Amino acid sequence: MASRTEARLAELGIALPVPAAAVANYVPYVRTGALVFVSGQLPLEGGKPVVLGRLGAELAVEDGVRAARLCGLNLLAQARAACGGDLDRVRRVVRLTAFVACTPDFTDQPKVVNGASDLMVEVLGDAGRHARVAVGAPSLPLNVAVEIEGVFEVE
Amino acid sequence: MASRTEARLAELGIALPVPAAAVANYVPYVRTGALVFVSGQLPLEGGKPVVLGRLGAELAVEDGVRAARLCGLNLLAQARAACGGDLDRVRRVVRLTAFVACTPDFTDQPKVVNGASDLMVEVLGDAGRHARVAVGAPSLPLNVAVEIEGVFEVE
Amino acid sequence: MASRTEARLAELGIALPVPAAAVANYVPYVRTGALVFVSGQLPLEGGKPVVLGRLGAELAVEDGVRAARLCGLNLLAQARAACGGDLDRVRRVVRLTAFVACTPDFTDQPKVVNGASDLMVEVLGDAGRHARVAVGAPSLPLNVAVEIEGVFEVE
Repeated sequence: MASRTEARLAELGIALPVPAAAVANYVPYVRTGALVFVSGQLPLEGGKPVVLGRLGAELAVEDGVRAARLCGLNLLAQARAACGGDLDRVRRVVRLTAFVACTPDFTDQPKVVNGASDLMVEVLGDAGRHARVAVGAPSLPLNVAVEIEGVFEVE
Repeated sequence: MASRTEARLAELGIALPVPAAAVANYVPYVRTGALVFVSGQLPLEGGKPVVLGRLGAELAVEDGVRAARLCGLNLLAQARAACGGDLDRVRRVVRLTAFVACTPDFTDQPKVVNGASDLMVEVLGDAGRHARVAVGAPSLPLNVAVEIEGVFEVE
Repeated sequence: MASRTEARLAELGIALPVPAAAVANYVPYVRTGALVFVSGQLPLEGGKPVVLGRLGAELAVEDGVRAARLCGLNLLAQARAACGGDLDRVRRVVRLTAFVACTPDFTDQPKVVNGASDLMVEVLGDAGRHARVAVGAPSLPLNVAVEIEGVFEVE
């Protein structure tokens, strides 16, 4: 039986990235009971960090939105891996916590993080509606503009 | 039967705010099993952000304490909504993560966040004692001084 | 029967610190179901904060690694307390979220946080492999360089 969510991804023209592997003594996700905790995902494209810098300095809100969407794609790729390849088994995106690299005068973190929130609902419908935390950070790993961690409820 | 917690709120003279509605593709809280994950709450009063700016710059510790307490009131309002209007069904405040907008030389985040921690125990007694994370952020949405997310265990 | 993990700690020459007590209306950890949420731990040694300052300014990466390891020791001390003194009852380190005090141009948070990640696997083996979030912060409580919170699955 074909996956409903895979069909939806195809319809949207979205190819999820290869989920990033563990690069140290941590892992991309841990499942405990019905919950999957996914490590902070960066805006990786073809395995390389993109959208570098800070909001309020060299980056505009639309750059941040793109970075957040890329983080979201990587979160979905990890969630799919955690579900043995079948995103239909995601019952709910429980919470996303998003860190936006920015200057002290930048206060549009919510607009930036919508790049990830919108993606979740595009792909998963109501199951994609999540609790959310959006905050600023002075800097992030590899100089990326956005990092997002996620908690998922799965079958 | 009257709610024990509502009676306590009345005794303390606390009227919880109307919980903020979803403003995008995210929601104020998600329940999964016995846990409720509440989105990052801002110091809203009458639906408007108050206590704007940064600790260590234009704001003093007592301003931050007020902001944290307002975040806490909004967290309780969301928790009440998640419990169908009955805060007696909150078994435990599990964890609060608090972000304090501040300058690089400000290190009194714990004093600020006590504004929310103290409120939880005032209202919920021992069930209000929580694990806590208090950190700095260069800036927060809408220029607010504090943002706090919470995890609650409910009946 | 001797604890496997205590034997491993002895073999590594590691003495866990006395877990820091609650200092306000919050507590060092809360258990809910099989999960233990531990409060943000600081690099305390003998109960005193050490490794003060920011990465990218007065501190080098190796200082940060030491701070992260100290946070990790304090996380393990709290997890042990949550398990009634027996770390063998930790089934899995689920997730660590690490905040690194740093300047806006510092982007080596992952190297810093490895100080805690490596410790978890040294002490707990595969059960120590966790999901991870590593981000920057402009400043942290008591001017410490690193703060880490943890979620553990326990028996």
